[in-house]
Amino acid sequence: MNSEALVFEANRRFYDALSHLDLEAMDEIWLHEAWVVCVHPGWQMLRGWEDVGESWRRIFSGDIGYQIELDQISVHVHGETAVVTCVERIAVVSEEGGDVSLATSTNLFVDTPSGWKIALHHGSPLPGDIQAPPPPIVH
Amino acid sequence: MNSEALVFEANRRFYDALSHLDLEAMDEIWLHEAWVVCVHPGWQMLRGWEDVGESWRRIFSGDIGYQIELDQISVHVHGETAVVTCVERIAVVSEEGGDVSLATSTNLFVDTPSGWKIALHHGSPLPGDIQAPPPPIVH
Repeated sequence: MNSEALVFEANRRFYDALSHLDLEAMDEIWLHEAWVVCVHPGWQMLRGWEDVGESWRRIFSGDIGYQIELDQISVHVHGETAVVTCVERIAVVSEEGGDVSLATSTNLFVDTPSGWKIALHHGSPLPGDIQAPPPPIVH
Repeated sequence: MNSEALVFEANRRFYDALSHLDLEAMDEIWLHEAWVVCVHPGWQMLRGWEDVGESWRRIFSGDIGYQIELDQISVHVHGETAVVTCVERIAVVSEEGGDVSLATSTNLFVDTPSGWKIALHHGSPLPGDIQAPPPPIVH
């Protein structure tokens, strides 16, 4: 695969980890360095793998399911880094019910000896029409 | 200056261009390529210099003044790219009055023969306490 395809796959693994609440996969796809950055939609910025990893542990420990569909995915490789942009359609399901929202996301990946790793994720809420009800999520 | 200092300066020039409504300076600090990305807080994502540059022209043609103060600035250089993260305190003044908001920003710079250029700006609204009233803006 060329670099663009490898980055596209790495980005897919990131969202699969989120959709499957798979902490091990999330741990695997992130760069474990002090400069990594994560902005969950509506959250304050988290810096450093320690805090970013902890945020995923907290998110995954809740009684909430996520189903993410991506739209408008764009990949650009620039040397040893790559930018992925996309629109996330996030279906959240908990005991209180379901909700669907859209987020604009910019993700930065870096090439490492063990593959492309995500070093920055910035998601922000996007106003927009939701065209369909949330799909059922089965755990 | 080392790379970190050069990137810090490039980031400062980006925000100076915004504060001074200086379209020429904004044009100068951006990378003019099809893959550049800009997410103004609350806006949909813009891709490509053509649309990004046009957005700055629209923003600067309005009768609105901006004063930006940056907090929590962090610079990390990774090869020929660099990530700058910061919190923006944005004072907006128009004929209708003033408003102050906070935004979380992630900016990506790339090294070019003519210096570090911004290739990605993602700002998203940040809920938070505003500690002081907006400073006066004089044009």
